[in-house]
Amino acid sequence: MTAALGEDWSAARLAAWMTPHLAHVEEALSAWVGTDSPVQLGDAMRYAVLDGGKRLRPLLVVAASEAVGGSPAASLRAACAVELIHAYSLVHDDMPCMDNDVLRRGKPTVHVKFGEADALLAGDALQALAFELLTPDDGTIELVVQANLCRLLARAAGSQGMAGGQAIDLASVGKSLDEAQLREMHRLKTGALLQGSVEMGAACACAVSARALSALRDYGAALGLAFQIVDDILDVTADSSTLGKTAGKDAASDKPTYVSLLGLERARGQARGLLADALAALDRSGLSDAAALRALAYMVVDRDR
Amino acid sequence: MTAALGEDWSAARLAAWMTPHLAHVEEALSAWVGTDSPVQLGDAMRYAVLDGGKRLRPLLVVAASEAVGGSPAASLRAACAVELIHAYSLVHDDMPCMDNDVLRRGKPTVHVKFGEADALLAGDALQALAFELLTPDDGTIELVVQANLCRLLARAAGSQGMAGGQAIDLASVGKSLDEAQLREMHRLKTGALLQGSVEMGAACACAVSARALSALRDYGAALGLAFQIVDDILDVTADSSTLGKTAGKDAASDKPTYVSLLGLERARGQARGLLADALAALDRSGLSDAAALRALAYMVVDRDR
Repeated sequence: MTAALGEDWSAARLAAWMTPHLAHVEEALSAWVGTDSPVQLGDAMRYAVLDGGKRLRPLLVVAASEAVGGSPAASLRAACAVELIHAYSLVHDDMPCMDNDVLRRGKPTVHVKFGEADALLAGDALQALAFELLTPDDGTIELVVQANLCRLLARAAGSQGMAGGQAIDLASVGKSLDEAQLREMHRLKTGALLQGSVEMGAACACAVSARALSALRDYGAALGLAFQIVDDILDVTADSSTLGKTAGKDAASDKPTYVSLLGLERARGQARGLLADALAALDRSGLSDAAALRALAYMVVDRDR
Repeated sequence: MTAALGEDWSAARLAAWMTPHLAHVEEALSAWVGTDSPVQLGDAMRYAVLDGGKRLRPLLVVAASEAVGGSPAASLRAACAVELIHAYSLVHDDMPCMDNDVLRRGKPTVHVKFGEADALLAGDALQALAFELLTPDDGTIELVVQANLCRLLARAAGSQGMAGGQAIDLASVGKSLDEAQLREMHRLKTGALLQGSVEMGAACACAVSARALSALRDYGAALGLAFQIVDDILDVTADSSTLGKTAGKDAASDKPTYVSLLGLERARGQARGLLADALAALDRSGLSDAAALRALAYMVVDRDR
C-alpha cells in the first residue's frame, strides 16, 4: 500500500521535517500575535498562543500545502490562523462557565492568570486575528487564495463546525449518546478544524485536482476523528503531568467518550482503523509527495500526550 | 455646503430609503443565522441577532455601497456580517465577567435566557458566521471583493479595533482618562466597526477613487466617535425603557465618559462638531449620491435611543 508513496518516514525523518516548520510557525506567531494590542489584552493573547501546544494543525496545513505545491507564504499564514482558532477555543473552553479548568499545557489557564474578562476578550481577538492573518494587503497572497482560506476557516470554526460541536458537547453532559451521536459531536468539535487544516493547506495552491482534494478531505476527516478517540483514550490512560492538562476530567464531568462507550480496546481498534482510512485516502490522492501527511497520521494515533 | 449633494433628506425620505433595506437585512439575517446549527446554539444565535437593534451598521454598509455603485449582493452580506460582529460583541459584553447586564433591547440578555456557556459559544459562532457570510462559494461575490471585505472586518473587530477598545474600556474602570485617552478608547471600541461598516460598503465596488475612499474613511471616523458621544449623553439623559437597555450604567460602574469628562453641554457640542466633520468629508468625496450617508449622520447625532 505504501509503495507508491515511498517508504514511511522514521521518527527522526519526521522530526527533521517538522523542526524548521515549527520554528517558522513559532516565529511568525510571536511576531503576529498581540504585538500591537493594548497591553493586557496583547499579553493574554500571547500567553494563550505562545510556548505551548503540539502545533498539529499548523503542521497539517504545511504538509498539505507542500503535497499540492502550495504557496509557502500562504501556508505559513494559514498555519498560524488555524492555530489561533484552536487557541481561542481552548481559552473559552477552559472558562468557569464551560469546563472550568485551571491547568492547560502545564500552566494556569488564561482566565486564572488574567481574569475572566480578559480571557473572554483575548479569545474574541484571537478569532478576529486569524482572519486578519489570512488577508494581508501586501501582495504576498493572491486575493483568490485569501477568500478561499477565509471560507474554509470560517466554516470549520463556526456553528456547523467547532463551535457547533462544543454546543453539542455541552448539551450532552450527563446524557447517554450512542456511537453515531458521539461521532457527530466529535466530527464537529475537533474534526472540523483538523479537516479544515488539511483543506486550507490544499487551498494554498491555486490548482489542485478534484481527486486530490476529495482524498485530502477524507484524510482530514479520518485523522480528525482518530485524534479525538486518542484524546479520549489518553484522558483515561495518561497522567496530568504527561498531558499537561487535567487527566480524567471526562469521567469526572460525566461526559460520554469513546472509552466510556466502547471500552479501551475497541476504542484503540477504531483509532487504528481510522489511521488505515487516512493512509488509504492518501494512496488514492494521486499526490506524489504525501510522506509528511502519512507520518503525521501515525504521529496522531501513536502519541502519548 | 449641501448644494453639491442636493437637499438634505426629510425624515420621511430617510424612512422611505431605510424601510426596504432594513427588510432585506432582517430577512437575510433570519435566513442565515442559526438555521443549520445545533438547536440550543442556533436559538441563542437567533435570539442575539433577530428582532432588535437599530441596524445602523448594516445601513451604513448599504448606504456607502450605493454611493460607490457597489454590488447589492455583496453589500447585503457585508451588512449582515457587521451586524453579527456587533451582536456577538453585545452578547459577550453583557456577560457577568464583563458588564454583567441583564437587559438588552428590552429583553433579558442572552446569558440570562440561555446560560453563560451557550452565550459564550453563540458569540463565538456569530463571529465565525460573519466571515462565512462574506465568503460564499456560489459565485455571487467576486473573490477579490470577498478577501477585501474579510480584511476590513477582521481589522475592525480585532485587538486593534473593537476588541482592543473593549480591553481598554475594561482596564480604565475607576481610572481617570484624559480626553485623548477617552477618544482613543472609543475610536477602537465603537468607532472601528462603524468606520469599518462604511469602508466595507465602499469595498463592495471594485473600483473606487482614492479620494472617495479617503473621504468615506474620514466620514466613518467622525460618525463613529459622534455615535459614542451621543451614547454617553443618552446614558445620562434617557431612561431604560426608551433605551431598551439599562440607563445610567456608566456612572454606576464608574466608567469615564464624554459627559463625565466634559459635561453635558460640551459633549453635545462635540457631537455637533463631528456631525459637521462627517458632512464635510462627504462634500469632498466627489460622490454624486451621498444623500443616504448624510441622512444617517444626522440620524446618529439626533437619535433619542
